[in-house]
Amino acid sequence: MRGFFEPETVAVVGVSNAPDNLGRTISMNLQAFDFKGIVYEVGPKGGALYGRRIYHSVDDIPDHVDLAVLLAPASAVPEIMEECGRKGVRRVVVESGGFTEFGEEGRALAARVKEVAARWGIRFIGPNGLGVINRPLGLATSFGILDPSVPAGGISVLSQSGGVMLSILNTLTSEGLGVAKLVSMGNKLDVDENDLLEYLIEDPETHIICLYLEGISDGRRLMELARRTDKPILLHKANIGSAAGRVAASHTAALAADDRVVDAALRQVGIARFRSTETLMHYLKALALPPLRGNSLAVLSRSGGHAVITADDCELSGFELATLPPEFLESVQQRFRAKVVRLTNPMDLGDLFDLEVYGDLAQATLAMPEVDGMVFLHTYVSGYEGPRSEELFRRLHRISLETDKPIAVYANTAAAEVTRLKRVLPGPIFDEPSDAVQALALLRDFGRGTAPSAERPDGPADTAAVRAILARCREEARDPLLQEAMAVAAAYGIPCVEGRLVASEDEAVAAAAALGYPVVLKVVSADVSHKSDFGGVQVNLRTEAGVRAAYTEMLAAVRSRVPQATIQGALVQPMAAAGRDLIVGAKFDPNFGHVVLAGMGGIFVELLGDTALRVAPFGRRTAEAMLRELRVFPILEGRRGQAPADLGALVEVIRSVTRLVTDFPEIAELDLNPVRVHESGSGCRALDARMRLGPATA
Amino acid sequence: MRGFFEPETVAVVGVSNAPDNLGRTISMNLQAFDFKGIVYEVGPKGGALYGRRIYHSVDDIPDHVDLAVLLAPASAVPEIMEECGRKGVRRVVVESGGFTEFGEEGRALAARVKEVAARWGIRFIGPNGLGVINRPLGLATSFGILDPSVPAGGISVLSQSGGVMLSILNTLTSEGLGVAKLVSMGNKLDVDENDLLEYLIEDPETHIICLYLEGISDGRRLMELARRTDKPILLHKANIGSAAGRVAASHTAALAADDRVVDAALRQVGIARFRSTETLMHYLKALALPPLRGNSLAVLSRSGGHAVITADDCELSGFELATLPPEFLESVQQRFRAKVVRLTNPMDLGDLFDLEVYGDLAQATLAMPEVDGMVFLHTYVSGYEGPRSEELFRRLHRISLETDKPIAVYANTAAAEVTRLKRVLPGPIFDEPSDAVQALALLRDFGRGTAPSAERPDGPADTAAVRAILARCREEARDPLLQEAMAVAAAYGIPCVEGRLVASEDEAVAAAAALGYPVVLKVVSADVSHKSDFGGVQVNLRTEAGVRAAYTEMLAAVRSRVPQATIQGALVQPMAAAGRDLIVGAKFDPNFGHVVLAGMGGIFVELLGDTALRVAPFGRRTAEAMLRELRVFPILEGRRGQAPADLGALVEVIRSVTRLVTDFPEIAELDLNPVRVHESGSGCRALDARMRLGPATA
Repeated sequence: MRGFFEPETVAVVGVSNAPDNLGRTISMNLQAFDFKGIVYEVGPKGGALYGRRIYHSVDDIPDHVDLAVLLAPASAVPEIMEECGRKGVRRVVVESGGFTEFGEEGRALAARVKEVAARWGIRFIGPNGLGVINRPLGLATSFGILDPSVPAGGISVLSQSGGVMLSILNTLTSEGLGVAKLVSMGNKLDVDENDLLEYLIEDPETHIICLYLEGISDGRRLMELARRTDKPILLHKANIGSAAGRVAASHTAALAADDRVVDAALRQVGIARFRSTETLMHYLKALALPPLRGNSLAVLSRSGGHAVITADDCELSGFELATLPPEFLESVQQRFRAKVVRLTNPMDLGDLFDLEVYGDLAQATLAMPEVDGMVFLHTYVSGYEGPRSEELFRRLHRISLETDKPIAVYANTAAAEVTRLKRVLPGPIFDEPSDAVQALALLRDFGRGTAPSAERPDGPADTAAVRAILARCREEARDPLLQEAMAVAAAYGIPCVEGRLVASEDEAVAAAAALGYPVVLKVVSADVSHKSDFGGVQVNLRTEAGVRAAYTEMLAAVRSRVPQATIQGALVQPMAAAGRDLIVGAKFDPNFGHVVLAGMGGIFVELLGDTALRVAPFGRRTAEAMLRELRVFPILEGRRGQAPADLGALVEVIRSVTRLVTDFPEIAELDLNPVRVHESGSGCRALDARMRLGPATA
Repeated sequence: MRGFFEPETVAVVGVSNAPDNLGRTISMNLQAFDFKGIVYEVGPKGGALYGRRIYHSVDDIPDHVDLAVLLAPASAVPEIMEECGRKGVRRVVVESGGFTEFGEEGRALAARVKEVAARWGIRFIGPNGLGVINRPLGLATSFGILDPSVPAGGISVLSQSGGVMLSILNTLTSEGLGVAKLVSMGNKLDVDENDLLEYLIEDPETHIICLYLEGISDGRRLMELARRTDKPILLHKANIGSAAGRVAASHTAALAADDRVVDAALRQVGIARFRSTETLMHYLKALALPPLRGNSLAVLSRSGGHAVITADDCELSGFELATLPPEFLESVQQRFRAKVVRLTNPMDLGDLFDLEVYGDLAQATLAMPEVDGMVFLHTYVSGYEGPRSEELFRRLHRISLETDKPIAVYANTAAAEVTRLKRVLPGPIFDEPSDAVQALALLRDFGRGTAPSAERPDGPADTAAVRAILARCREEARDPLLQEAMAVAAAYGIPCVEGRLVASEDEAVAAAAALGYPVVLKVVSADVSHKSDFGGVQVNLRTEAGVRAAYTEMLAAVRSRVPQATIQGALVQPMAAAGRDLIVGAKFDPNFGHVVLAGMGGIFVELLGDTALRVAPFGRRTAEAMLRELRVFPILEGRRGQAPADLGALVEVIRSVTRLVTDFPEIAELDLNPVRVHESGSGCRALDARMRLGPATA
């Protein structure tokens, strides 16, 4: 990938001296950014531009060419690519549009471009993008005019949209945040985000990587790459709506919609997700500060109102306001003539008009071991206290570096002065008290839940038994039935309630007698998924007469409500002992592979929405973390007079499901729901199971 | 209140010509804002300022004084107030600090100021604020220098914090939004937000009212005032944290924490709550647009990426993207040479470089009856397409007015150009695609749930019975016991499960026989609130032996876990039929009076957090709206194969509770939990009740 970012010679193809020619702007940008290499212009009409020759073709350039930037009509691109190949160009940026967006013709052109490139060993970025910026080298291939005043720095950006890249660049410029490399990747016909990400991870000039993606090319590779680096990776994954309204057969599939899988996967490898340029800026500003090592903040504010607002924001973000020891407060009061300030946290500096004392107080407070970070809110009139305030901000930055703790600074003054400060100050400035707190919260939570590695959990695995069941289903071109799904689960060590398949009232009565009353009856049919919705479950049957009546009634109910259903029979199960009903499930995601879900179970799973999701495989610690994530966790642990549930047994079920889908990738969906979890020490038991098979991918 | 805003003569008291004198800045602000009246400066040292006399005292002013602005040391304020009284001044702004903030002395001074003012019939604003701004009149009493470039307009602001008022003013100025009146109210020792709100509601120059409050002076009066007006009221109620960590005896009290009551009360009267200046700006910009009458938007974007992001934001905000009929799309394609644009929604204008066609497309699309509003996202380089883009923005504004539908415009260009546009354009500009969508969502949701009036619901009310029970409890200085609370509920027509109070095993067995097996046993003790946490509930007892064993066991469990508890006995109830368990409760809030709560019940109420809250009294429609607000509502309605629950019966319980607490304000807390709701037509029944009494306020 280096060839794209560090060319010595660049050919811009598609230049003319017509005033509306977009190729010209690429040359202008290279000039404005002070590109350190040589630029050649190419255009079929030839001529001259700014006293420089426009070559008729790439062949005519009297020099080797490291990088060609193409902005010709789509139909001409395959031929130009051919020319580049002959000339020995091995890196090309294709900015032309019209490839895959407008049907048949575009797709055919795209295929030809790929073919030519592959034949010559050319790697290319695009089409339909703005190409590459390497700020330190002055490389800027955009056909939109760029503002060259963006400072050089450690932030790199990969964007699938040129417009979004430009808006990020505009905002970075006005926030005074410095950039290294930016790529507008366009349609990703050849080079994709993972190729570029791999390069940026190694690039010494890049310290933070931002991505804007509408589609993820290869989720598992993205996860692998992210696991490899310590550099912060921030991702805006847009296009969340594709799953909306899709009908899912299982609870797990409904709850593990594509976008939730993306969320889980990113969190698992410590990629921070953002949804707006504003939040991205909060992240970038936060990452410009020293690390936040704890959850305890101090708030210093000249305006009492902002102190109150910030205390609110701290509470809403889960921060604690550090309790400052009275000895400290006393000594501070004596040392810094701060008699008019009530030294609490938040600290209202309102009646103190000496900005030097503000700095003294900030320094003394941040030095306290009880304080992990600070929000400093300064209100002033720039015409009156401008220079003194700027000196205060610089001092706060030094204090932050010296103590190695973050200070998030909010400046409440005229907007123009805030804009100026963002350009000249070494540290970031926040536009709202809530932004400052949100940034510290992002800094605190960043990379939380990073999984060290992806391991297949060990444990019981009767692969032969599972293979046999799945083969039979595949032969009969159907999904596993209830009792088959239970058998698969049992083969991987998941405790399941006993069950007998029956085909008549008499068989049902016999099974009930053998299992012992009370029993449950469940309809077995490949055509009836949500059984209880159609009268397909009868519980608490205590007598033979009850079983007979329930059997007849159940079958009649199902037949009347799902007339087309083929009914294979019924399953008789003993009533399970009391406990908490949870769900454990899995789903195959085309991009990330299998995901495993655990949460509050029953038939209201989607309504409660209390579930945790992870990309498989993962180890025991992750399974435990999933349970801790649930709102229901305190109850499982045994709060409010309840006995604690057997969480260890539940963790084993999660591990078994993970193992099962790792071994059998063809399992498209699996619901164990409910898994009834008994009191600690008494284990748990799957009472129902549902499974759908996909293509045999393994 | 008018006297504060429209004085002909103003005396600024506390002026000297010392360079750090803050009183001077008040005079400077009045000059800078071009105050239309006469200003007199007063200071004990006398002298001159800018060629004008500084009078030694208010008495010396050779003119009547309509408004005095005081910025003298706190200790001098009572004397100056006295002077003002003698001089005939009846409106005073006190900006001095040091009154109630620093203990005893300050409080004594405050009392003296109040006394003097009352004696002379003076109304005053403050102390500890920046006073009043009346932009059209040029009145500006702030002791901080203000930027006079803020345009005149219809927005008025009342703020309890001077710093917050300044930051709102700064942001309004940079957003180009015009103001009418602003008041920094300080400590609200005399004039409070309700006095000023009443004035602003009548004020013809004020079209929108914004408030920043750290404490609400009188919640019920605020609600009354809000009910009186159609003007949008926007409120930042800060200082939310006071309730954190408070221990509540009932579920309702825990769930109706002060800040949730504020939320409910504001929503009930259509006051929009915001938590940051940023959100306030979204509201104000949205309110500058025509109304949004439906939920269906069109998105037009030059950048495909921003189109995708905006579609995401629309989905997250619950908007629909209008489906544009194919005939429309075809005719548009022919009329507007828009062949290169894929006419879908969101519409990507990317390959079209004619801004006039953008306007044509926007006009045709917004005219469609299927489209209620639009987000228009424009990406451009200001040096290149600046004037044409500005013309486009102006045209979009006209289209919006002509169609009477909102267009939220996002401009992606250099920050300086965006700043300029905000000043010169007649309509608002948003800084992010997500801001534009959020603003439209605020516009859509604004004022939702406005209750027309507050009426005591009619229905059964045996006030004598309730009075007797409450009197007995008060005599014995205790809260009602379980069976008493049930009796109170029953007296107001709430169906309750039958119950017999017993004091021995034998009595329990006799009661069970009379009620019919199976039965439930519950401990009755004034000292045991959450009975089930302490083994105080035994369900499903089917035999005499079972009742005996359970009775002994239950009492032993409670005695061992709450040794200090006095046990009054036990309640025997028949087992209730199956149904959904809900909670209906009420709580007295010192600021808003009683609030009524309804939601998912049982012992996990707080965990599920699925409850709705309203300030009492209210009518049937509001009770119904509370149920619709619940996440559990679809299940109550009968989705997923479940029979619908008897919602009518539940609404009656809510109405009865509302009636009860309206008639008996001394009921501090009431939990009916669970209220078991049976299938439609089968009613509902309170299975348990808990009540706490407060001071007899009625």
